Parts: sequence; structure tokens; C-alpha cells
Amino acid sequence: MQLHNFNSGPSILPPEVLIQAAESIHNFNNTGLSILEIGHRTSWFMEVVQEAQQTVKRLMDLGDEYEVLFLQGGATMQFMQVPMNMLDENGTAAICDNGVWGNKAVKEASIFGKVKVVSDSSDKKYTYINKDFELPSDASYLHITTNNTVEGTQWHSFPQVNVPLIGDMSSDIFCRPTPFNQFDLIYAGAQKNMGAAGVTLVVIKKSILGKVSRKIPAILNYQKHIEAGSLLNTPPVFSIYVSLLTLRWIEKEGGLQEMERRNKEKSDLLYKTIEELPQFYCPIDKVDRSIMNAVFFLTDPEKEAPFLALCKSEGMIGVKGYRTVGGIRVSMYNALPLSSVQAFCALMKRFAIDN
Amino acid sequence: MQLHNFNSGPSILPPEVLIQAAESIHNFNNTGLSILEIGHRTSWFMEVVQEAQQTVKRLMDLGDEYEVLFLQGGATMQFMQVPMNMLDENGTAAICDNGVWGNKAVKEASIFGKVKVVSDSSDKKYTYINKDFELPSDASYLHITTNNTVEGTQWHSFPQVNVPLIGDMSSDIFCRPTPFNQFDLIYAGAQKNMGAAGVTLVVIKKSILGKVSRKIPAILNYQKHIEAGSLLNTPPVFSIYVSLLTLRWIEKEGGLQEMERRNKEKSDLLYKTIEELPQFYCPIDKVDRSIMNAVFFLTDPEKEAPFLALCKSEGMIGVKGYRTVGGIRVSMYNALPLSSVQAFCALMKRFAIDN
Repeated sequence: MQLHNFNSGPSILPPEVLIQAAESIHNFNNTGLSILEIGHRTSWFMEVVQEAQQTVKRLMDLGDEYEVLFLQGGATMQFMQVPMNMLDENGTAAICDNGVWGNKAVKEASIFGKVKVVSDSSDKKYTYINKDFELPSDASYLHITTNNTVEGTQWHSFPQVNVPLIGDMSSDIFCRPTPFNQFDLIYAGAQKNMGAAGVTLVVIKKSILGKVSRKIPAILNYQKHIEAGSLLNTPPVFSIYVSLLTLRWIEKEGGLQEMERRNKEKSDLLYKTIEELPQFYCPIDKVDRSIMNAVFFLTDPEKEAPFLALCKSEGMIGVKGYRTVGGIRVSMYNALPLSSVQAFCALMKRFAIDN
Repeated sequence: MQLHNFNSGPSILPPEVLIQAAESIHNFNNTGLSILEIGHRTSWFMEVVQEAQQTVKRLMDLGDEYEVLFLQGGATMQFMQVPMNMLDENGTAAICDNGVWGNKAVKEASIFGKVKVVSDSSDKKYTYINKDFELPSDASYLHITTNNTVEGTQWHSFPQVNVPLIGDMSSDIFCRPTPFNQFDLIYAGAQKNMGAAGVTLVVIKKSILGKVSRKIPAILNYQKHIEAGSLLNTPPVFSIYVSLLTLRWIEKEGGLQEMERRNKEKSDLLYKTIEELPQFYCPIDKVDRSIMNAVFFLTDPEKEAPFLALCKSEGMIGVKGYRTVGGIRVSMYNALPLSSVQAFCALMKRFAIDN
């Protein structure tokens, strides 16, 4: 049976990335050694890091005022690392809270300073992005989650503010052309559009650093990582390499414009199918729907379990909604082929006819 | 040319671990999916984590009062995470500083509380382990580095103290039978004896937690990781799986007694060869020599470069000493076969005859 991998992350990767990754475990770049056995300070691995950094900058169209780091701990680490580096005890972090992950960013920031939730969408169960906000005059920065993986919403344009703008792009980085230079700090766990779990991309405009007075442990200090060329200590070598392979794949396939074309084609098809079938509905505001994660429901909640059972029997992996949301969630990251969405929509139609 | 991998870390892994790791990238456990594409909350991956935890506990012969975590950030993260969780602002961390890594532990702990370096071996250029110390009466814990990767020294018995004993075992974990229950917290970056870079083993006696008053970010809070069964957020899935494969290999090969037998056989041969050849010398006190990393020098410093060039031409990888120490460093982790040490010793003899 052919499997269709709609996992929300870790998630599907391009087949050629998997082939190259497996090959590197046997013999990395004809060194005769495994990628798992090479020193991280060898020229072999330095080249991997540098090419990955350059590819990120090229895809983001950013200049030398930005630095690219490959860190560990996922977005959950960034929820605390950002305020630790950017928020003084008496400063205020302005945060847009439109879902589970934004909410976690709020909690962690409050350990380091004041937090002002400038907007949230809990009044409508997080079914839209609340873009109606005012910044407090003492805001140290504004933090947004560009795509809400759990709730299925996505920012399609970004706030223009006069303080540093921080974007958690974990679940939609490189899914489309993006004005990255509108952001001062971008972070993303790699395990959706950018590789395997175990590495976190952090892109920083250098000029925003050095403004807080607390002592920062070396491993959490962005400045120290920058000075060390992202090799402060032993990095997650293999995960960085898989990210490089994925970044190369994005460029080779046509870059962010082509990713957007494919992602829109997939998500348009899925949302259109949901609209057409009365057995399904999507509660998300149309203007805020995510092209990465579609969250929707069965009109008759009793039909949810049978539909999920059918999906499972037909090799549709990872389509159960997040535990706090329920329903169906179909993740359509860059590497997911259109054919998988076509197969899923065909299954929805079959289910609709039978029900 | 056959390569001999003496890298200090990331370092050599057992060939069968590499074969299984590569296979899992194509098809993990006959799921039809890559290990890089499966969700971390699937039963597939939960079983990986649980088996890895149980294998660690079995190898360490520890009971239910201990918990096993697989975290990120390497030992460098633990240098700050240990004091953040264990050291109050007015508490005192007692630290034995016998090398580069112990010294980093001192620096990071000082951000969180008082630090008392109870012993250090800088008086003899770190060529021994200074075991002559007294604990301050207000010590919150004692921290030791069980093996000094850079300097080539190793504790061969451990201090008996009446405060929690913390061991950084990054470079010698599972190299021999060890009274692990003498320790209250053990940590180790995986990339030497326990797998690939990207995951850090932390073993904690639960009763030592909860004694500090500061607010701890979730991702750095051991208690939160314990409550989440080491799945607080997306973990480094592949690195954990490679650790499981390596742990299985250790057990299958005969466990820690067999690892010690092999490691002693290799290190005895190398140290004996150094002693026999006047062209080489090892400055490390005999009682403190590491069975993992042998650090030694050419009697005539002028001969160092030619010897390293010969090593390179003969496929001996990673034998240059650490940048602040110089000389030669031969790392002989669990996965290094005796034949590699035999080949290296034969090369030393050939070089000695020619010089």
C-alpha cells in the first residue's frame, strides 16, 4: 500500500534527501567515513555549515547584517532564549497569541520580563489571526507565530512595527516568498520544511543584540554562537547536514516561488474539496487559512472516528487533529506531493458519497 | 586505504550501528516510513525512547529512584542546566577542575550561584587528577568530569561525599563497570561512546530536584522533562535512535565488563608502546591515565609535524592533540577495534626506527 505522509512534524522529506542522507551514513562525500563519525571542526563539516548558512541567506535574500545559526532545542528553546537575550527585567515583550505555540512563547517570556499579549484570538477559538493590536510604548520587541500548526491559521502579511519583529516560522519557513528582511529575528525547528528533527534555524539581525544586562550562559548566548560561526560546541552534525540537503532541494526545485506555487495548488485543492462537500467544514477564516496545515471537521462529529479509520486503512498518515483541537489536520509541507492531496481528496469524496 | 578513526568525538561507531541507522532512513522498522519522517508521539518512537531508557538503566544497574532523559545541547548545555536546577543564588557549587571541560562547568555555574573550585590540577599542567580536596560546609553539590578528553586523564575511583555527586561522563560513559549509584546526576553528550552528535543523556536521582527557588524555563527544567517522559517537545529523533542502536550493541557484545576488557587491552598496548619507545613520552601520571584518550608527545618536538604527516598518509584519522595542548591524542572509544591500535603502534615503531 502506498503511504501518504501528512504528519505535522517531524514530517515528509523529499525522497532524494532521504537517499542522500542514508548514503552519507555509509560514506560521507567520499571521505570513507560516516557523517556520524566525522569531527565537527573538520573542513568537511565546516563546509556543510557554511553552505547551509549561505543557502539560507540566499533563499531569504538577506545581507551581511544578518547571521545564520543552527542551534538545538527546537522552538521551545527559542521561547526562552529570545527573551533571555532580548528582554530586560523591566522591558516588555509584546506577543501576538493566536494559538498553542504563541501561548507557550508568552509563558516563557514572562520568566524574564514583562509580557503584553497585544492580541489573541481565543474569543473565536483561535479560528483566525487577530491582527488588530497596538504596541505598548515600552515594547522591547513584537513576537508573532507566522503559522499556527495546531490551529491551521497563517499570517499572509506581516505587521510593520518600529521595534524588532521576531517570527517563529517553525511550520511555514520557506513555504513561499517572504519579506524576511521585515524581521529582526527568525527561528524555526527544522522538522517540517527544513529537514529532520534535532536542529533549529535562528537568523538574527546583529544590531538587535547586546541590549540586555543579565548574564547569559554561553550556550544560550546568540552573540557567542555568532562569534563561533555556529560551532560553539558539538552541533547536531547529521541534522544540519539533512537541512543542507533540504535547502539544496528547495533551490534546485525552483526556490520559494515554486514552493508557493506547489503549496497553493495543494491547499487550494483541499480547501475547495472541503467547501464542496457538506460532510466536512473548515471553521477557519478564509483570509487566514494556512497553506501548510488545514484544520477541519466532520459536520457530523459521529463520523469523525469512521473517517479517521478509513484514512488509516488507506495509508493516510498523521491526519488526526491535535489533541486539544480534535477533528482532522492535513499537513502539506513543501515535500508533500500534489498526488497525496489528490488521493486524500478522492478519499473524502468517496466517504461523502457513502455517508 | 583502510582508515583508522581515532576522532575525539564525534567519533567511530560500530559498523552494524551504521548499517542499521542507514536502513532506518529508508524504512524504519518496516513501517514504510523513514525514521526522519515519523511523528515523535507515535507508538513507534515512544518504544524507541522507552527501550533506550530501560537499556541505560540496565547498563547502569539503577532503580526507580533514577530517571533517564535524552536532551539536547551537549555537555555545554548541562554546564548551565545543572546549576540552574540545583544551585540557589546563595548556594555553593563545589567543582573539581581538572581540565578544559571542568573549567567551563565552573564558568557557567558562577552565573547562578557561588562556586568553590575545590581542587584543580593546573599546577602540573593538568597532567593528573587532583583528588585532594575538602568540601565547603555549604556545598549544594560536587561536580566532577570523570574523563578529561583534552588532557587524557580519568578518575578511576570516585569521591564519597555527603552531597549530591554530579558526573560529566561525556567521554567515558559505558567504557567500564562504574558505580553509577554513587552519583546523583550523570550527563553525557552521546557522540563518543553512545551514538551520534545531537543528543545528551541525563540520568537523575529524582530526590535531588525541587530544591531551588528560581523560575526555570520549561525546556531547561529537568522535572518537566521527567513528567513528559523525555518527550516535552520534539526530541532529536534520529540521534536518540542511533543511541538506542549503540546501547543495544554494548549489551549484545557483553556489556560494560567486556567494554572494559577491550578498552584496557587497547590502552595497555598503546601506553606500553609509548613507554618502550624513547621517541615518545606520556606526561600523565600513570594512576590517572585515561583508557579513552591517550595524550602524549614526541620527545623531540621537531618530529611532531613529520609524525602527524605520516599518520595522515597512513589513514590514521584524528590523532592531532587538542589545540591548547598540542602533541598527539589517540581516542580509543568502545567502537574502536584493537586492530586500529595495533596498526597505530606498528606505525609508531616504524617511525621510531626511522628516527
